[in-house]
Amino acid sequence: MSLNIGLLGCGTIGYQVALELISKKFENLNLKKILVKDSKKIRENIDKSLFTTKAEEILQDPNIDLIVEVLGNEQPALDYVLTAINQKKHVVTANKELMAKHGKKIFSLALEQGVHVQMEAAVAGGIPVINTVQNDLKANHITEIIGILNGTTNYILSEMKGGEEFEEALKQAQEKGYAEPDPTNDLEGYDSKYKISILASLAFRKYISPDSVSCVGIRSISKKDFDLAKEMGFSIKLLGRAKLLNDKSLSINVSPYLISLDNPLSQVDGVLNAVEIKGDLVGELMLIGAGAGPKPTASSILGDILTIKNKGHKVFLPYNCKESFVITDKNISKFYLRLEVNDEKGVIRDIGCVLAENGLSIEAIVQKKEIDSACLTLITHEIEEALFFSSLKSVEKLSSVKKISSNFRVL
Amino acid sequence: MSLNIGLLGCGTIGYQVALELISKKFENLNLKKILVKDSKKIRENIDKSLFTTKAEEILQDPNIDLIVEVLGNEQPALDYVLTAINQKKHVVTANKELMAKHGKKIFSLALEQGVHVQMEAAVAGGIPVINTVQNDLKANHITEIIGILNGTTNYILSEMKGGEEFEEALKQAQEKGYAEPDPTNDLEGYDSKYKISILASLAFRKYISPDSVSCVGIRSISKKDFDLAKEMGFSIKLLGRAKLLNDKSLSINVSPYLISLDNPLSQVDGVLNAVEIKGDLVGELMLIGAGAGPKPTASSILGDILTIKNKGHKVFLPYNCKESFVITDKNISKFYLRLEVNDEKGVIRDIGCVLAENGLSIEAIVQKKEIDSACLTLITHEIEEALFFSSLKSVEKLSSVKKISSNFRVL
Repeated sequence: MSLNIGLLGCGTIGYQVALELISKKFENLNLKKILVKDSKKIRENIDKSLFTTKAEEILQDPNIDLIVEVLGNEQPALDYVLTAINQKKHVVTANKELMAKHGKKIFSLALEQGVHVQMEAAVAGGIPVINTVQNDLKANHITEIIGILNGTTNYILSEMKGGEEFEEALKQAQEKGYAEPDPTNDLEGYDSKYKISILASLAFRKYISPDSVSCVGIRSISKKDFDLAKEMGFSIKLLGRAKLLNDKSLSINVSPYLISLDNPLSQVDGVLNAVEIKGDLVGELMLIGAGAGPKPTASSILGDILTIKNKGHKVFLPYNCKESFVITDKNISKFYLRLEVNDEKGVIRDIGCVLAENGLSIEAIVQKKEIDSACLTLITHEIEEALFFSSLKSVEKLSSVKKISSNFRVL
Repeated sequence: MSLNIGLLGCGTIGYQVALELISKKFENLNLKKILVKDSKKIRENIDKSLFTTKAEEILQDPNIDLIVEVLGNEQPALDYVLTAINQKKHVVTANKELMAKHGKKIFSLALEQGVHVQMEAAVAGGIPVINTVQNDLKANHITEIIGILNGTTNYILSEMKGGEEFEEALKQAQEKGYAEPDPTNDLEGYDSKYKISILASLAFRKYISPDSVSCVGIRSISKKDFDLAKEMGFSIKLLGRAKLLNDKSLSINVSPYLISLDNPLSQVDGVLNAVEIKGDLVGELMLIGAGAGPKPTASSILGDILTIKNKGHKVFLPYNCKESFVITDKNISKFYLRLEVNDEKGVIRDIGCVLAENGLSIEAIVQKKEIDSACLTLITHEIEEALFFSSLKSVEKLSSVKKISSNFRVL
């Protein structure tokens, strides 16, 4: 079977995909047209005749079998993808926001029209995590997914682990092209939120909206947290995590986590991504690799195209689009808590009492004198997340506590 | 499409596969018969009527569409698998020795007969590395594969890292059921050799015989090596490694390697397996997970069955069965070398001279006094492997050198 391909978008990723297709490494894959903003712009090694500025020249061309969507953002990507599916074209997309928000609609329409939609590149770049969850682990009852899903924040946190301050690490990331001029989406965890909701939908086989993911970014982490974490044998990572508590309820969040230094996840530094999947049969499986960049992303996109090329005609829904889960904050976790307290007698006793009243016990504690106050850092034993967050309110009210500086989960 | 399944073998893995199939978690997969040695033996939750002691009752049954082979060893597995394929039955196997030695014959016959042969469980247990190499990374030019492919030796080495002597660690592994009563296949690296030759064949797309893999096991590693490696910032692992030097020549070996402690591979301890794959697009991808055990192995076997169930009819050869590579020892590597030398002046000078004459320069060196001699440990700069091994002969001839205690590659 041969496939005629239309490419929507020719930024760094689209350009790389175009080059690979043009190289003729792949039998029977023919790049027919590329949607660009400016068809006059010279793109080395791509024949100008391939360019069009009109989406309909691709979407309405009956000779095109498959579109690759690398535009990013919700619109016009959504309209284009739905139109393509209605025209019975297969879709390969790298668009996490699109698939997180509109996957239900897109997959339902694709089932109706009998075409395939693949999105390996939408999560964790070159790491084949979607295929692993959907196909290789199909026999498993998956119970948990944990991921370092954003290379920008992982780069910044790795630099902070090495001693940089946040602002300096962000500046470096921007200079190296790892962070956008407006880095909000990455820093606030929104990018990770889209990705963990896609992975959770596939793993637990019911659609989970990104809106249901509680989300804390990395601005709340300071260099001081890294120093303290390291002393206690931990590193800090921004994780997306989804955990099935029972058939009906799911804990899902994006948030900074302390990770023990003997867990390989703690060694995944720089722009790398990593995903850990827990299943009843496979146990724990971890995938580590490049989470972004033109080549790793093209690896996934081309893998998807080749999968469609060799697939049968049968189309499956990847998840139940009608039911979902109750999102709960009843997951059990250890917590890291850093407080700025008055440097006076009885502080630890006061805090210990308040925590005990809330059912919280302490596993490790470190107090350090600072200029006008003291820094009290503790790690709790396991507690229901909701209880921990509510007990923070009691801690905050103590006269000896000046400020809750940080509070993160411990993996 | 529904599949009627015949299971060849009911040891720990076969039993787990049978339980999963009987549980009816999977639509349209029907376990019809199980080949056992003793049909009177009671196996909990499996109806006795499924058992047969006659292979032909499965292989010649026209109602059976697919066989799962979990017998292990070459024979009678090879005869059974070839017979099944001739009877147009699909094959799922966990047998690395079979597929490493006879893959060429088996895949060629399967192509002729139009049936699928899947072997995810043959390499790295629950880790979906075969599917990753064959499908997800299909768009890549893969250049190197490195793996911790044997859980038994990885367990022993992890215990040795923790301070155990080899014999004690082996005894523990046997008590826990991780090592066989006769552990030769694991300890000498034969098991890893089968696995790396299968992975290399798939990754580089030409059949590579396990006989062409140079192989050193873990008996050559002592606790002293771990202590010295740790001082220099390394751990020691038994790796299978295959590296393409150019279109025609390949370096492939199983051998102990020093791995830097900041490489996540060095943290893969206990019975875990890990595989790192390097490709032109994906960069470096690492998969870590359970390399053995009934459940992880069943995860891969059931994944394979479900893949066949949803596959089209087209059968592909996974590699070129007619051409192969020239196996070369011209790969470039750093080496770790531990020598027992006379505790006298000029030893380092003598060794430095001999190494320099052979084109070898030294990156790090540590000398320690022992009772009647000294222990000299060094790490070389990169050198062609063949040159390193030939220069060892000159080192051995030096009057100040009592013994070459260890020599391992550095990753």
